[in-house]
Amino acid sequence: MPARGRRPLGSPDARRAVLDAARELFAELGYERTTMRAVGARAGVDPALIYHYFGDKDGLLSAAIEIPADLAAALAEVADDASRAGEELVERVISLLECHPEIRERMLATLRTALSHDHAAQLLRDRIGSVLLAAFGSVLASDRRELRAALIASQMGGLMLARYILKVPGAAAASPPDLAQAVGPVIQHYLTGTIGPRRPA
Amino acid sequence: MPARGRRPLGSPDARRAVLDAARELFAELGYERTTMRAVGARAGVDPALIYHYFGDKDGLLSAAIEIPADLAAALAEVADDASRAGEELVERVISLLECHPEIRERMLATLRTALSHDHAAQLLRDRIGSVLLAAFGSVLASDRRELRAALIASQMGGLMLARYILKVPGAAAASPPDLAQAVGPVIQHYLTGTIGPRRPA
Repeated sequence: MPARGRRPLGSPDARRAVLDAARELFAELGYERTTMRAVGARAGVDPALIYHYFGDKDGLLSAAIEIPADLAAALAEVADDASRAGEELVERVISLLECHPEIRERMLATLRTALSHDHAAQLLRDRIGSVLLAAFGSVLASDRRELRAALIASQMGGLMLARYILKVPGAAAASPPDLAQAVGPVIQHYLTGTIGPRRPA
Repeated sequence: MPARGRRPLGSPDARRAVLDAARELFAELGYERTTMRAVGARAGVDPALIYHYFGDKDGLLSAAIEIPADLAAALAEVADDASRAGEELVERVISLLECHPEIRERMLATLRTALSHDHAAQLLRDRIGSVLLAAFGSVLASDRRELRAALIASQMGGLMLARYILKVPGAAAASPPDLAQAVGPVIQHYLTGTIGPRRPA
């Protein structure tokens, strides 16, 4: 029988609780100082079970760094009309984050974790890359695709930080439609505009 | 006489060492867990002198969160030609950060500290606001100035994170002139473009 107040890890709730606790602790303490014991204590789960399910701390990190599935799905729906894709991307991402605080918190904790640790940064950038390329592969202009994807990520990541973490007044107070109108053309520029030096003809 | 290996705080070197140590520790441990004793130990300075010069931990935080003066100066030189201001801003900021690793590290540590602590976030956003308004007050379009400044900060901050911390390949590998050409029009859009809904005539 599990100890009092503990949850069996098999349940989806317990898995979610472990990942939430891991993201919180990675972001608060950094990867090095986070112990499996502390994650177990915060999640109310026996640490031995965390080892059993995630292998080791690195496996736990890898599972904790995620682009929430709903966010990836929202992006994947954007690309139907290439000429409006920029504005739609901003609109969908911001309304998802506004309407679902739990998705927002998970994404911000992932971002904070990635900023605190090199390996976490690498995991996040690989995943952002594949989510963006999966969603926009067909819309993205054919030149400099890696730079284009990186600049989209830089603007959307910077916007999340400014609005939700730093709470810069102009970015925190703007309505989602205002942001979509202001930032949409920028994402459109990165998706399909001329972003490099004119090539010699 | 100061203890062996310790520096008197009056010297600019020692002040710089204290602020560097404070930024490192705030970013590593967060504000709450950083002690004046630990800052003194890392900087090789008597903690009592840190209290003497910075008042308390909050005063130390306030001194540690800074937009490096050279960065502010580089921005202030941009605004001469309003039509090229966007590209010039990106060019100047990126080449300063490329050529001066110590300024880059200081700026990144400030950013990391701000992301880890609400009060630090508030200090940083106030300073970014005044630096941007001082540099671009005359170039910035007259409507939605707060939103415009916030979006410039979000794109430049996101670019720094993507290039120097997350090391997203497309952003890390691009040359400074390529970045200036790709991101310059975006900053120009935020400075002087139409960023809101068309107002009813």
